[in-house]
This record gives sequence, C-alpha cells and structure tokens, in this order.
Amino acid sequence: MSRGLVTKRGKKPGTAPGTLIHTGKKTDHPIRLRVVDYNDETLTAADGVDMAACATLPAGKLTRWLRVEGVHDPALIETLGNGINLHPLVMEDILNTDQRAKIEDYDHYVYLVMRMLHLDPDTHQVRSQQLSLILGEQLLISLQEHPDTLFDQIETRLRAGKRMRFLQSDYLAYALVDAVVDNYFVVLEQLGEQIESLEEELIAHPTPATLARIHHFKREMLLLRKSIWPLREVISRLARDENDLVRRETQVFLRDVYDHTIHVLDIVDTLRELLVGMLDLYLSSISNRMNEIMKVLTIIATVFMPLTFIAGVYGMNFEVMPELGWTWAYPVVLVAMAGIGGGLMRWFWRKGWLRQS
Amino acid sequence: MSRGLVTKRGKKPGTAPGTLIHTGKKTDHPIRLRVVDYNDETLTAADGVDMAACATLPAGKLTRWLRVEGVHDPALIETLGNGINLHPLVMEDILNTDQRAKIEDYDHYVYLVMRMLHLDPDTHQVRSQQLSLILGEQLLISLQEHPDTLFDQIETRLRAGKRMRFLQSDYLAYALVDAVVDNYFVVLEQLGEQIESLEEELIAHPTPATLARIHHFKREMLLLRKSIWPLREVISRLARDENDLVRRETQVFLRDVYDHTIHVLDIVDTLRELLVGMLDLYLSSISNRMNEIMKVLTIIATVFMPLTFIAGVYGMNFEVMPELGWTWAYPVVLVAMAGIGGGLMRWFWRKGWLRQS
Amino acid sequence: MSRGLVTKRGKKPGTAPGTLIHTGKKTDHPIRLRVVDYNDETLTAADGVDMAACATLPAGKLTRWLRVEGVHDPALIETLGNGINLHPLVMEDILNTDQRAKIEDYDHYVYLVMRMLHLDPDTHQVRSQQLSLILGEQLLISLQEHPDTLFDQIETRLRAGKRMRFLQSDYLAYALVDAVVDNYFVVLEQLGEQIESLEEELIAHPTPATLARIHHFKREMLLLRKSIWPLREVISRLARDENDLVRRETQVFLRDVYDHTIHVLDIVDTLRELLVGMLDLYLSSISNRMNEIMKVLTIIATVFMPLTFIAGVYGMNFEVMPELGWTWAYPVVLVAMAGIGGGLMRWFWRKGWLRQS
Amino acid sequence: MSRGLVTKRGKKPGTAPGTLIHTGKKTDHPIRLRVVDYNDETLTAADGVDMAACATLPAGKLTRWLRVEGVHDPALIETLGNGINLHPLVMEDILNTDQRAKIEDYDHYVYLVMRMLHLDPDTHQVRSQQLSLILGEQLLISLQEHPDTLFDQIETRLRAGKRMRFLQSDYLAYALVDAVVDNYFVVLEQLGEQIESLEEELIAHPTPATLARIHHFKREMLLLRKSIWPLREVISRLARDENDLVRRETQVFLRDVYDHTIHVLDIVDTLRELLVGMLDLYLSSISNRMNEIMKVLTIIATVFMPLTFIAGVYGMNFEVMPELGWTWAYPVVLVAMAGIGGGLMRWFWRKGWLRQS
Amino acid sequence: MSRGLVTKRGKKPGTAPGTLIHTGKKTDHPIRLRVVDYNDETLTAADGVDMAACATLPAGKLTRWLRVEGVHDPALIETLGNGINLHPLVMEDILNTDQRAKIEDYDHYVYLVMRMLHLDPDTHQVRSQQLSLILGEQLLISLQEHPDTLFDQIETRLRAGKRMRFLQSDYLAYALVDAVVDNYFVVLEQLGEQIESLEEELIAHPTPATLARIHHFKREMLLLRKSIWPLREVISRLARDENDLVRRETQVFLRDVYDHTIHVLDIVDTLRELLVGMLDLYLSSISNRMNEIMKVLTIIATVFMPLTFIAGVYGMNFEVMPELGWTWAYPVVLVAMAGIGGGLMRWFWRKGWLRQS
Repeated sequence: MSRGLVTKRGKKPGTAPGTLIHTGKKTDHPIRLRVVDYNDETLTAADGVDMAACATLPAGKLTRWLRVEGVHDPALIETLGNGINLHPLVMEDILNTDQRAKIEDYDHYVYLVMRMLHLDPDTHQVRSQQLSLILGEQLLISLQEHPDTLFDQIETRLRAGKRMRFLQSDYLAYALVDAVVDNYFVVLEQLGEQIESLEEELIAHPTPATLARIHHFKREMLLLRKSIWPLREVISRLARDENDLVRRETQVFLRDVYDHTIHVLDIVDTLRELLVGMLDLYLSSISNRMNEIMKVLTIIATVFMPLTFIAGVYGMNFEVMPELGWTWAYPVVLVAMAGIGGGLMRWFWRKGWLRQS
Repeated sequence: MSRGLVTKRGKKPGTAPGTLIHTGKKTDHPIRLRVVDYNDETLTAADGVDMAACATLPAGKLTRWLRVEGVHDPALIETLGNGINLHPLVMEDILNTDQRAKIEDYDHYVYLVMRMLHLDPDTHQVRSQQLSLILGEQLLISLQEHPDTLFDQIETRLRAGKRMRFLQSDYLAYALVDAVVDNYFVVLEQLGEQIESLEEELIAHPTPATLARIHHFKREMLLLRKSIWPLREVISRLARDENDLVRRETQVFLRDVYDHTIHVLDIVDTLRELLVGMLDLYLSSISNRMNEIMKVLTIIATVFMPLTFIAGVYGMNFEVMPELGWTWAYPVVLVAMAGIGGGLMRWFWRKGWLRQS
Repeated sequence: MSRGLVTKRGKKPGTAPGTLIHTGKKTDHPIRLRVVDYNDETLTAADGVDMAACATLPAGKLTRWLRVEGVHDPALIETLGNGINLHPLVMEDILNTDQRAKIEDYDHYVYLVMRMLHLDPDTHQVRSQQLSLILGEQLLISLQEHPDTLFDQIETRLRAGKRMRFLQSDYLAYALVDAVVDNYFVVLEQLGEQIESLEEELIAHPTPATLARIHHFKREMLLLRKSIWPLREVISRLARDENDLVRRETQVFLRDVYDHTIHVLDIVDTLRELLVGMLDLYLSSISNRMNEIMKVLTIIATVFMPLTFIAGVYGMNFEVMPELGWTWAYPVVLVAMAGIGGGLMRWFWRKGWLRQS
Repeated sequence: MSRGLVTKRGKKPGTAPGTLIHTGKKTDHPIRLRVVDYNDETLTAADGVDMAACATLPAGKLTRWLRVEGVHDPALIETLGNGINLHPLVMEDILNTDQRAKIEDYDHYVYLVMRMLHLDPDTHQVRSQQLSLILGEQLLISLQEHPDTLFDQIETRLRAGKRMRFLQSDYLAYALVDAVVDNYFVVLEQLGEQIESLEEELIAHPTPATLARIHHFKREMLLLRKSIWPLREVISRLARDENDLVRRETQVFLRDVYDHTIHVLDIVDTLRELLVGMLDLYLSSISNRMNEIMKVLTIIATVFMPLTFIAGVYGMNFEVMPELGWTWAYPVVLVAMAGIGGGLMRWFWRKGWLRQS
Repeated sequence: MSRGLVTKRGKKPGTAPGTLIHTGKKTDHPIRLRVVDYNDETLTAADGVDMAACATLPAGKLTRWLRVEGVHDPALIETLGNGINLHPLVMEDILNTDQRAKIEDYDHYVYLVMRMLHLDPDTHQVRSQQLSLILGEQLLISLQEHPDTLFDQIETRLRAGKRMRFLQSDYLAYALVDAVVDNYFVVLEQLGEQIESLEEELIAHPTPATLARIHHFKREMLLLRKSIWPLREVISRLARDENDLVRRETQVFLRDVYDHTIHVLDIVDTLRELLVGMLDLYLSSISNRMNEIMKVLTIIATVFMPLTFIAGVYGMNFEVMPELGWTWAYPVVLVAMAGIGGGLMRWFWRKGWLRQS
C-alpha cells in the first residue's frame, strides 16, 4: 500500500547536491547495458558491455543508443556521467527514481525524465518506473529502473527500416517518448474497461466491495494524473523551443506526441469525473436501499401492532367483559382483524410502498 | 456501454508514426466518394469516382470538394494522401477516429479534425464520428466515418446560389464547420428537453430510475464537453491566425462560428450544473421520504406499544388483582386506552408529524 | 419551465449564414419604431415612422436615436439593415434572440448585444430579452424584443438636459448600457431579499418546499450568471479599445459601468455560494430531524418492550407458577415495572435524549 | 439579516451618472470635518471647519489632511467636490457606500475606495464601512461613513514624530491604508478564535446550534472575502504603477501592505476551508449518533421480541398444552428466556455494538 | 489548538511601520549567535559573539555566515539591522514571525523569508518556525526562532569539503534553502505513512476516532499548503531573475530546489485529495453500517411480530373458540409458527439480507 504516495528519499536533508544515492525500491536484478550503434548503412548491437567503454563515442557518423536497464548502482552511473561529462545534479536525478517529469537544457545535452507505466495484472494497480533520457549529438542514453520489452520494438524498427536509420538521435528520442505515451493509452484502456465493468456492477448490484473498488480507482487516477501532468509541459518545450539538438522535422512529430499527452490527460480527467459520479450513485443507492428496508419494517409494524393490541385486549382477564361470552365474538374479531390488516395494506399500496421501485 | 470513454487504439506502442491502421469501430458499409467541382459559372458532381483520379485537381478555375464517407480502408486513404502529398501523421490521424479536435498547418494545406454529433433516438446517447477536413488552395476534402445527410444541404446551396459559388474552398470549409456546430445546438436542444422533463419528473415523483437517468445525462455531458472543448481553440486559431488559405472575409464568418462554439460550451456547462443541482435535490428527496417513513413507524409504535402493555398487564394471571373483579373496570380501561391513544395522536399533531409535508 | 436553458433555434444546420429567421418566442405585439433626432439646440421625436425612411440619416449636425421595440418581423430588419448597410451576420444576430453578449467592430459601426433582465413578479423567475445596439457616427439604433419603459427615462433626460444633448451617439449608447446594468442591481436586490427571507424560513422551519425554492434560486443564479458573464468582456473592450466611434471622455464612464458589471457578478457569486450553504444547512436539518424521530421511537420501544415482556411472563398459563398466588405479587410487579420504566427514562435523560436540542 | 448581501441602491436605473444621492444606511449623526495641516516644522489641526473653506488649499509647503466622518449629506460632498474639481462619477461613488474596492487615476488626483471592517461584539457579525481616499499633491482627503478611532493613532504619530511629517500626502495615504489592513488582522484574529472554540465544541458535543454557527461563520467569510479580494489589485496597482503622486520610497511600503493583503486573503481562505471541513465533521457526527440510536433500538427489539413471543406462546389458551402441567416447566422456560436474552447480548457484544465507540 | 490558524500580531493597527515588536510565541531560551568565516583556505567559527561585532564584516576575502537562533529580542535585531543598514520593514518582518514566504530585493542585499517545518512526534502536528535569510555580498545571515540541528550538517560540509568553501554566500544560501525543502520531504514522508496507515484502519474497522484523525490530517495539509505555496514563487524568482548577488552557476542549483518545491506541493495536493476520498469512504461506511443495523432490526421485527400476533390470538379469552378444544391444535399452531418464521427467513435469504456483505 505504500506504493506511490510519498516515496522514501534516501538523501538526508543537508547533504550536498549531487550526492549519489539510489533512492528507489531496492532491487538486485543485474543491470543490463546494451549499445546500439547505427547509421544509414550499418547497425551493430552489443550487450553487457563495459560502462566506461560506452562513454567513448564511436568513430564515424554513427549514432549511439545506450540502453541502461537498472540504475541501482551509483558507481556505474558515476562512471557513465563522468565519461560524458554530466552535471552532478543530473546524475543525482537519475538515481532518485521519484522525479516528476522534467526537461533540462545543458550545454551539450538535454536531460529528460518521465515515467513509464504498466498495470499490475494482479492488483490492478498502476506501477511506474522512471525513464531518464540523455539526448546528445549522435547519442541517446535511456536509463530505466527495470528491464522492459517496450523499446525492443523500436530496436526492431531500427534494424528493419533503412528510413528510420537515416534519422538521428533526436528522432530516436521521439520514438522512445512516443512508445511510452502510446503505452499510457494501453494502461488507460485496461483501466477504462475495468471502470466500465465496475459501473455496470454498481448499477446492477452495488456492494460495499464496489465502494472499495471505486476508491481504489480514484486513487489510481490521482497517481496517474500526478505522473502524467508534468509531462505535458516537458513535451511542449521539447516540441516548441529552439534547440540545436532537436531538428525541426522531429518537432512536427513531437507536436503529435504532445497532442497524445493532452488526450491522455483528457481521458484521465474524464475517468476521474466518472468515478466521482459513480460514488454519488453509490451513496444514493445506499440511501435507496435504506428506504426499502425501512419500508418493510414500517409495513410489518404498522400491520401487526394494532392487531396484536386487539388480541391483547381480549386476552385481559376482567371478570365482566360481555363480548367474551358472545357466540360470534371470536369470528367477528378475526374478521375485523383481517379487515384492519387488509385496510392498512391497501393504504400502503396506495402510497406506492408495496410496488417494487 | 463501452462507447466513448476510452477507445481501443489499434496501434501497438512502439510502431512507427504514420503506420496506417484504422482504429475506429469496424464497419463494412461501402465507402462513398463524391466529387463536386464548381466555380461561379459551372458545377459538376460525380459519385463513386476513383480515388486516384480524385487526387488530380481539375483544370481551370474550378474549386473541388471531395466528400469521403467511410475511412475504414487504409489503402484508399494512402492513395489519396500520396496523390496530394499529405504528411504521414495526417494520414494516420484520419484513420485513428478517436482524435481530439485539432488544427495543423502544413505548407500547402491545413488539416482540421473535429467531431460530428448526433443523438441516438433509442438510447438517448450522444454518438460522435470524426470529421477530417483538408483545406488546400481550390480544394476541400471532407472525410467522415459514416454517411450522413448534414452536408447535403450545403451541396444544395452550392447548386442553387451563385453567390456561394463565387466563394472558394475556405468559405466552403466554413460552411461545413458551421453546419457541424449548428448541429450541436440541435443535439443540445434535444438533450435539454429531456433534462427538463427529467427535472419535472424529479420534482413530481422521483424514483431510483430518475437517479440512473441523472447519472446517464451527467455522463453524456462529460463526453460532450470532452468532444467540444478543444474545438474552441481550433476555430479560434482558424479565425484569427494569419493564413494564406483562409481569407479575411471568411474569418469574419469563422468568428461567428467561434461565438457559437462558446455558446454551445456555455449551454453544456449550464446543463451540467443543473444536473448536479438535480442530484442534490434527489438526495434530499430520498432523505425527506425516509423521514416520512420513520414518522409513520414512530407514530404507530408510540401509540400501540403503551396500549399493548396495558392490555398485557390485565392479561396477567395473578390471583389477587382486585381491578379484575370490578364491574366497570373493563370499560374504564378501554376508555383510558382511547384517551392515551388520542393524547399521543394529539401530541404528534402538535409536532406537525401528521400534516402532509 | 422550458425558459432559458436551451432556446430553440429556428435555423436548420446547413442553411446559409445571414438567413433571416426570427428565433425568439413568437409574439404578435405591434412593432414600435421611434425616432429621436437631437443636437444641442433642438430635439424632435416621432413615433411609428417608416423603417425605410429611418435608415436615411437626418441632415445637419443631428444625432439620431432609433428605438425599435419588437424584432419579430425579418422583413423590417432587412429593410433597415440594407438601408444602413449592415453585415448579413449582424441582421441574423438581431433576429436570433438567444445570443450571448458580444461586441463586434465593423468598419462604420459597432454591433453590441446584451440581455435586459426583469423579474417576473408572479413566478419569481428572471426573464430576459435581447438588446441589440448599433452604434454609428451620429446614429444609435437600439433593438429590443418587447416594449419596456427602462429607456423612457433616458429620453426624458435628453429632452430635459442640454448637457446631455451636447454629447453624441457614443454617450447615448453608454447611457442605455448603464441603465441596463443598473437594472441588474434592481433585479438582484429583489432576488437577494427573497433569498434572505428564504434563509430565515430555512432556519426557523424548513420544509420540502424550502428545498424546492433553494433549487429554484440556484437555477436562476445559474442562468443570471450565464447572461451577465460575457457582458464583462464586452464592456471592457468598449471601455479600453481604441475605437473611432467611442470617445475617450465616454470611456471614463464606460469604465464605471464595467466596475458595476463586476460588482453584479460578485453579488451573483455571493448569492450562489450562500444558496449552496443553505442547501447544506437543509440537508443537515433533515438529518437532525431524523435523529429526533428515531430518538422518540427508540425511547418508546426501550421503555415498553421490557414491560410488555414482564406482563407477558405473568400471563403464561403454567399450572405451577408460585408467584401468581402471592397476595402482594401484583402490586410488587406493578411497582417493579414502574421502577424499570423510570430507570430507563432516567438513563435517557442522562444521555441527553429527553432534552430539546 | 439584510446586512451586506445586496445593498439597496437609491439610484433609479436611467438616472444620469453623477447624480448625487446617498445610498448607504440612513444615519443622522453629525458630520465631522477635521483639517490637519502640517509640514516638517508645524502642525495645526482644526475641527468643524467649513467645507467650502477646506477646499482651498493652504498656502506654503503645508500638506493638508482632511478627515470627513459622515457622507450622508450630498450637498456637502458637492461643495467639496466642486471646490477641488472632482469628476462627477467620483462624487457619486463617495455617496454610494456599497462600492467594491477600486482605484481610479484622474489627472490631478487618485481616487481610492476600500472597506473598513470591525466585528460587532454582540452579533459576531462583521460590519463594514466605505473609506474613500482622494490623494492629490499636498492633499489627502479621507471620507468615512461613521466616526471611528482607527485614524486617531495616525494623527498622534503625525503630531509626535517629526520623521513622519517630512513625508508627504502619499505616505499619509499609505499610513491610512496600512492601518485599515492591519485592522483586518484584528478582525480575523477575533473570528479565528471564535472558529477554533467552535471547532472544540464541535468535537466535544455538537448540537444543531453548532451547525447554525458554522453556517454563520461561512457567511461572514464569504462577505469578508468579497470585501477584501478587490483590494488586492488596488494596492498592487498603487504599489507598482508609475504615478506622479506616489513616490518610489512610498511604494516600498505599499508593497509591504500588499503582502499583508495577500496574507489576509490566505487566512480567510484557510478559515473557509476549515469551516467546510467542520461541516463535514458535523454531518458525520450526526450520522454516527444516528447509528448509536439505531443500535440501542435494535438491541432492545432483538432481545425482547423473541422473549415476548415465548411468553405469548405459553399464554395461549389451548386445552391440550402438556407443558403447562409440568412442575418444572415455568422455571425451565424462565431459564431458557434468560439464556436466549444472554446469548443475544453476547452476540451484540461480539459485534462490538455494546462498546462505547 | 490555537496553533497556526491566525497568529496574534502584537502590532496595534496604526503604529508606524518598522516598529520593532516580537510577535511570535513568547520563548525565553537564550539567543545563540554563531559566526562562521571562511574562504577556500581557512574557516573559523565562534559562538556567543557580540551582535555589534558581527555586523562588521571580516577583512580579506572571507565569506561570513551569521547564524542567529532566537529572534525574540528586538534590541538585538535592531543592533544587527543598523549595523548592516537594513530597511526598517525588514527588521519588522524578522520579528513578526508569522510571515508568508517572500523575497525582497534591496540595493545591497536580498531578504528572504520561508518557514522551516518539523512534525511534533507526540501530537502529529506540523510545527513551523520562520527562517529569515539576508544575503549580501560575502555575507549570509540566517535567523531562526528556535535552535535546530538542520543546519549543523551544512557547517560540517563547509568544514569538510574544500569544494564548497570556494563557493560564496549565494551557494551557501542555496544550501540552507535546499536543506529546508529537503526536510519538507521528511515531514511529508512521516505524514504520508500515518495517512496510509489511517487508510488501512479506515478500510478494516472505521471508528469515529478515524473520522477525527482524517479531519486532523486535512487541517495539517491545509496549513502545510499555506506555508509552502508562496515559497514556490520565491524560489522561482531567486532562480530566474537577474540579480548581482546570485550567480548563474548557483541558479542551476536553485532551479533544482524549485523542482523539489513543486514536487512537495504535488505531494501535499495528492495527500489532500486522498484524505477527501477517505472522508467519502468513511461516510459511505457509516451508511453501510446503518443499513446492516436496520436489516437486523427489520428481520427480527418481521419474524416475531406475526408470530407474537398469532400467540396473542390464541391467548384471547372468548368463550367460544372451537380451536382451543382440539387436541392437535397446539402442535399444529406451533408448526404453523415455525413455518411462517422459516418462510420469512427464507424470503430474507433470497433478498440477500442474511449474507454478510
């Protein structure tokens, strides 16, 4: 349950900026390093290379894509950062895996942070990991917390299509960001389907569990929005600002991603408002059921209390109760009771309490 | 029920931009192509023409309006797009029929997406389809998902009035946008009438079905607002930006459409706030009815419990109960019971519980 | 009840802009035309003049004020519009009497729409009609839907004070707008008084009718705000924009009207928030009354159920029940019952349930 | 109760701007005029002077502060206004004592309106009066509705400290505004204390009177916010705009007042949100008490209904009921009843209904 | 409880600005003065020095950090202020320890106020104290209300790392602000953990105490937000404005602190919305429990009222009641009663009232 609200920050207040401490969840999967060097004629890919070697850019007109999966080893990040001359704050941000999406311009590179999402199929919770992109001339470094198959598709395209290989690191960065944002739609589709089936459940037979699920999804939407909202501005700046590293042709594509981000936020907001409406509906349905319960009680009490009272009267032991001796008294009283009961039922019928509503 | 919240996107994250996959609802109605060529002197219209031929603009000072009804054939869109040199992202957007309204300036054309609405008469649900407009010099292409009679009226005007024919593709684009926005008013009028009759029903005799209908309309308003809101900015940009393709005379008319769009949003917001007010009213009316039910129960219990108790007392079998032997005991007790019952009823009358409220 | 939410628009989507169809409520009162020509030396006024003649401006340094009361005759508006060369969209807007307040600059005139309000004394509903102003050099045309005495006062001032007659059509336009906005205060004063008396009623003795009235006033405030909000920007533009037709001296006065408009909106918002607070208070008071009702029921049941049980025990017919034969059994049981009842009442007293709250 | 919501405006719509009618509450206290003329060397103060004389500025390098307490005499204001050449709209605004805070630049003076607040110690209601300031070269006129001791302190400082006397009318204006804003803190402190004691009362023992008091304070906050909000912009303009009458040294001080105003609004908003939270708490506490009441009822009914039923069974008069003749039947039934009652109580204990919550 | 809402301001309205009165909570701990003088070669620190001496800057290229812990002695502040020529308003602000965060540029120094937070471990309340920073050339003065260990870490870094000592007073100011903001995360982590455990408690077994705690945390969030919100703009101005005292290298670091501040506000807002959701959940759970209680009552009443009535009928004393004489009547009636009771229970089972929900 401690997922996502306030993440523990390892850093103690007062420590120097640029102090490299990994602050995400402790993991011990091996860190995967993969280097893809390509231009329009050739493409080589290698796994498990040495970080120090990676930092030395390849000769010739090659564009290098360095994929790092796992950032829980500060020493490694420091080696890389020093190799390509990163600002200490950037190294710190790569390790502090609870950043808001942001973009920062440095002299020879752009640093971009965003969050990758996926839906845990068991708990229906949205999980996120931090993606750091460092975009330099002929260089793109992507740093994720965990291995993930989302970017394999892009390597496949790079390998397959010559057209994409002509394009450079900025287009590659666009391709990664686009894949991440498109994946938001996948997550939202899954959430949307669950919310709609919850809505059907709510209308058909609401239970307290329905309420807990509405609360769960409201919480997820809150965290989703928190993750995606700052990305809006990040991509807007990337798509619109003057920048030597992002070519104008790529900006056309980035504007398309920007529209998608706005669309994602639109959907999140729509789902949130729908969930608020569902909560209102739930509360009303509780009140309605309460009314039904009270009606049953009131009908029963109203019918039987007077009858029991009459029976009580003729159960009294006074010596002088002339009715008790009359031959037809008993059937007359029974008929009167039936009449009173029937009359009350008719009254309730007229009030509409007996009809199913 | 899966209409409108989060639409399935066929595109897998990581595929290349410009990959042409139709992502709307699967339909198999035949695609209708209609070409209208006109200038101030002549007008020819042809149906079912070949897409490749359409892409070749007519000779002379003719303005061409190409109406495409059905976008579920990617090959066709590709033929058209390549013929008139569309950006791959535009072709992708035409096929992904879940776009937010947007406008994009390209060198030799403007691409504009918006949503056409109509109200399903059976389910009272708002249905929408995507309208793509490509406005070029002497050329307007309108692409809809399904056939629809809304634009026939405009062809009729084109055919009838010479005055309109003098005007060029930008005015024609305005005429289409104006027709779409005017149709929003028609949809809102129908919804508004239903909401007002729902309000009357709510005040007269609210039932749980009323609640479900309030929820339904709130949901519709949510989706309507989501569809129309981005159009505001689209038309504003069309009406105010410098643009070679949109003449200043046409911008006067577009500002009028802009005012209408604002007005539509105004009405949507007003209806939403009204629905929120109706929900409050509904909740209050449930509570009021609960009060009524409880009053009935309390009156019945308060009157008959003491009486039943008295009857119970004189039904006890103690051997020494002097009252039992008195001759007038029974009538005295009956009168006392009537007095107690009457007194309680009078108390309730004074409290105002017996008056209809 | 169909007043004000979504007005029927006569125009069918797809018809040409500038198609002149009157879309307001059908009325058949005669249209009143009144021409007032004045300068600092002279003033002539004539009623029931011919529309075609009106369009011809008077010779000399006269300023003409043309008052049109009734716009349900499209032919008349067309005659007028053509006479003074109005844009077709302006003529359409004059006839479509459901416009939002707006201002439009044309070459030789300014077109301004706003809504005049008055409170229907019977239904306590705010009624509105559209006021169109066409401000030209030496010319002001005011077009209302119905006759109204609000502007008579201004004609009187024109007739009386030489000072006002020196001033020209822009100051006259200001005078009309000022009168309309001042009248908003009158309407709000009346509504405010009713809302305050409703608040007193709510605190003293709330009934379901109170709830319906709160809902009614919330609805009125919603529609009021919708009417007045856009006027804010209209007057701001009139008061601040460079404009040949509005002199700087007049703009000082218009800024004053602008402040009044803001003040009106302030009051509307305050009243709306007050109504929301009143609704909360109402809901709480229902819950409080429910508590009172349940307390009565619970006290009655708690006191009499044990007593009735005891009476029932001694009403059993077992042959061996030694107590039944004891001489003092009956009084002892009665005293015990009184003790139990009294003890329970004391318990409730201690719990504070018997005190009026 | 009619205080503050919508003030009656004496002015009839359509009357000329600048028509001088006093529109505040009718009062008949005498109007106090006090003139303070000072420079760094001398200071003279006189009471009850003639208004016409006041308008003539003193000779020499004297700064004049004219304090007017009471604006219910239009003739007096007109004399003053004409004497120093005020715009008719300014004179009208001085008399209409329901203005929003505003600032207006005229050629030779600045006109500033704001509201002075104090808390009525009896009703705990915030009362406000209008303060008009006219700031000219060497001249400051302050016009209040009622006498008030707030500014006496400033005159004392003027009299005491030479340092302040060097400074001119703009600094004096700052001193007045600062005193007014500082007084807002005093009012808010008093309200804040009452709200906090209300919060304690709410947590300890909420009653319907608590609810009424929450509503009362919400209403006060609404009106307070309405009074103070526009002042924000007024002081911001005074502190930042270029203006011949306000020196740069004074603007440093005005920025300080601006910060105070923001702080006041902050506190008002915090108190409002706290009151909203208190209302939620109140509603929850009602529901909680309802639960308690219903538990008592349900426990009583659940325990005694089965027992009364058993007693009723053995009170039946069938001739053949073998148990009735058994010797130990009565004690056995009594024990069984005790067992059933005890079992039910234990069940309730396990459900936690008997524990105080 | 009077903590934080509206702080008492000692200053009486109308007193001169710059009047030095300490307005925070009265404390009498001794004021600690500590001077740290450093450059890249040397560092000397001294405690308990004389304030007058402190104001004289050290000779040579030393940067002085003056730590003042305790501001409740106006005379001391005046000595310091006069020594380094502070504006009277700055001295007043240092003493009025209820300032909103703000930044003010003076000619030779920048004055910055912000709030330091810590969580009281006993009451779970957020406590705040005011931190004033005066940043001059080669000089940084930090003034806190109480001693606190947060800045000791920074002195340690200064003492340890030569790198930091090269940097000047602006970087030192950044280090302090960064430590304060990082500490916000620590406070929020603690609050977040408590809120999450409260959420678990709410879902598992909500009690009225849960409600009080939700209210408590909402109140804390309100006050937290109020404290942190204005800091956003303060740091933004420090990080972006041109300023002689803040070097461009330091601004890179300040932008990082700015991002952290936004992140903190994000978390505060997320927690607030979560608390609102928890309140809704609580209210729903009360209603649900009410339903459960009412179900128990209704089941009991519905089952036993008809049975008691039947027993009552056969307890009547009519002389002619033939059934009473039948041999099998008693067992038949018992069986019939069991049948009726069982039938009702089955009905409730079918309605789902007997299943745990």
